[in-house]
Amino acid sequence: MKKILIALETGEKEQAAFRRAAEAAGVACAFTFTTPAAATEEQIAEACFIVGNVPPRKIAASENLDVLQLFSAGADPYMPEGVLSEKTVLCNATGAYGQAVSEHAFALTLMLVKKLHLYRSSQLNCRWEDHGMVTSLDGATVLVVGLGDIGLSYARLVKAMGARVIGVKRRGGPCPEGVDELVLTGEIDRVLPRADVVMSVLPSTADTAYFYTAERFGAMKRSAVFINCGRGNAVSHEALLQALRSGEIAAAAIDVCETEPLPADSPLWREEKLVITPHVAGNFHLASIYEGIIGIALENLTNYLGGKPLRNIVDPATGYKR
Amino acid sequence: MKKILIALETGEKEQAAFRRAAEAAGVACAFTFTTPAAATEEQIAEACFIVGNVPPRKIAASENLDVLQLFSAGADPYMPEGVLSEKTVLCNATGAYGQAVSEHAFALTLMLVKKLHLYRSSQLNCRWEDHGMVTSLDGATVLVVGLGDIGLSYARLVKAMGARVIGVKRRGGPCPEGVDELVLTGEIDRVLPRADVVMSVLPSTADTAYFYTAERFGAMKRSAVFINCGRGNAVSHEALLQALRSGEIAAAAIDVCETEPLPADSPLWREEKLVITPHVAGNFHLASIYEGIIGIALENLTNYLGGKPLRNIVDPATGYKR
Repeated sequence: MKKILIALETGEKEQAAFRRAAEAAGVACAFTFTTPAAATEEQIAEACFIVGNVPPRKIAASENLDVLQLFSAGADPYMPEGVLSEKTVLCNATGAYGQAVSEHAFALTLMLVKKLHLYRSSQLNCRWEDHGMVTSLDGATVLVVGLGDIGLSYARLVKAMGARVIGVKRRGGPCPEGVDELVLTGEIDRVLPRADVVMSVLPSTADTAYFYTAERFGAMKRSAVFINCGRGNAVSHEALLQALRSGEIAAAAIDVCETEPLPADSPLWREEKLVITPHVAGNFHLASIYEGIIGIALENLTNYLGGKPLRNIVDPATGYKR
Repeated sequence: MKKILIALETGEKEQAAFRRAAEAAGVACAFTFTTPAAATEEQIAEACFIVGNVPPRKIAASENLDVLQLFSAGADPYMPEGVLSEKTVLCNATGAYGQAVSEHAFALTLMLVKKLHLYRSSQLNCRWEDHGMVTSLDGATVLVVGLGDIGLSYARLVKAMGARVIGVKRRGGPCPEGVDELVLTGEIDRVLPRADVVMSVLPSTADTAYFYTAERFGAMKRSAVFINCGRGNAVSHEALLQALRSGEIAAAAIDVCETEPLPADSPLWREEKLVITPHVAGNFHLASIYEGIIGIALENLTNYLGGKPLRNIVDPATGYKR
C-alpha cells in the first residue's frame, strides 16, 4: 500500500481525481488529504509521494519519500543539504504560474508606464493633478530576464502591444517565438542600456542573489522602469531605493521583497516612484494556478505509479527545472 | 492672401511643415502661430483656416472662417448654434487619440482586474495585505461601447490577451476585425449582463448624456468592472457611487468626470473601489497624439488649399465624425 500525502487544500472533486489516478494505474494507494501547515511529521515520514510545500524541517531526509511535488515554482527551501534524501526526486509546479505572474507583471508595467501609481496617490489626496507625459510599449525595448514559462508569457503580452523583446537566459539555444533577440545572463550588461523596461523573473539561486547591483541600475536608462516578479533577493532594497532616489531609473514595481512581509517601517513603502504588491502575483490568486498545479500533480502521480519519467524535475545543482 | 491661424504649440519643425504645405499647394498664405489662449479676437476674425481649439465665444460665427480644425476628438463646445457660421466646416482630430486613450483605458482595465488600486492604497498605508483572488482578461467578455478609433484600438489590446469583444455602436454594418460580436447602442441592455468589463468611450452628444443609468449599472454583473474614457457626462457621479457602494459592480475607473476638475470635496475621490485619473488619457500626454494632430492638420490644410474634400468632418447633427 503506497502512502500518498496531498498537503494542499482540496475539495471532493480534486480528491476524487487523485483516487481515480491511482485506480487507473492499478496501484493500491492510501491517500491523506491535509494542508502543508497541518501535515504531521508522522504523515510526512510515511509518505512515498507528497504533493505540497510541507515544512522542510519536517521532512528530515525521509528515506521513504520517492517524490516531493511542490506547488511552487521556486524550490529554494528544499535545496539545502539534509532536507531531502538523495533518493527523493524534487518536482516543481513550473507551468502553473505563467499566466498569473506574467499578467500581474504586465499590469504593473502598464501602471508604471502610464503613471497610474502617481495618479492613485494624487487621488488619495483628493488632487486633480497632471503628472505629464507618458510613454507606450509600442516601439519600446523590453528586457525579459528569466525566460521560463512566466518570462515567455510576459514576452508575448508586451509584444502584442508593439514592444521589441530582448530575452535574457542562462543557457543559449534557438531564439524562442515572441522574443526578438536572445542574450545570455552573463552578457546582460551589454543590453541593459538599451532597455525601456527591465522585467525580472529570476528564481532564487546562488547566481541570482543581488543580481541587480547599483552598477546595473546605473547602466539602465534614466527613463527605464524596473519590475521584479521573481524572488526578492535578486535586488537589494538599498540599491533599488538609491536608484529611484537618484533618478538613475524612472520607476519600479516589485511583487517580492528581500524581507517578506516588508516591515512597516521600511522606507520602501513611502517611495513614491515604487509600487509594491505583497507577493500576490502567483500565490493561488488566479483560478488557473490551482488548476495547473492539480494537473501537474495528477500527471506526476500517474507517472510515478506507472514507472514513467516525471515532469518538472528540479536540478539540485541549479534549483531550476532540468 | 489666405490667413491661416495655427493656435497650437508648435516648434520650428512644425511651422516649416505648414509653410511647405502652402507652398506645395501654390497658394499665398499668411501664417500666424499662437496658442488657443493667446489667439486674439482679431486674429480669429480674419482667419479662413484655424487649427486649434480657440475659445468658442471668440469665433462669433465669423463669416471668414472656412475651416476650423480642432485638435480634440470631442467637438461639443463648438456644436451650439451661434458659435460657428453655417459656412464653416468643423473637423476634429479623430485618429490622433486612438493609441493613447486605448492604452490608458487598457492600463486602467488591468489595474482594476488585478486589484492594483487596492494594493497601491495598502502600500500608502505601509500595509502588506492580501486582497484575494483576481481575474484575467483571458476568456473574459469585454463590452466596448463606442467603436471609433479608440474603441477599436482598445478591442485589439484586450483581444490579444484572450478576451471576447462585444462592440457597441450607433449604426450597424459589418463586424470590424478584432470584434467578435456587434450590437447597436439601442440594444446594449441585451448584452450588459454578459460583460466582465464595460469600457465606454462615448462622446458627448444629446444621446449619450447620462447613458449609464442606475438601471444599467444594476444590469451588470456584480463582478464587472466599468471604465469611462469618453466624456464625463455619460455617467452621473451619483449613479456610479451608488453602484459601487451597493456592490452592483466590483470596481470602476474614470478618466473623465461630470464636473472637471473634480472638486476636492467630491465623495468620489475617497471611494476605494474607484480609480480616478484627471482627463489625461489623451491631452497630448503621449508623443503620438501631437504627431497625429499635426498630420491631420497638414493634410486638411493641403486639401483645403487644393480644393479637395476634407477629412474628419464633424456632423453637426451628431457631433461625431461623419
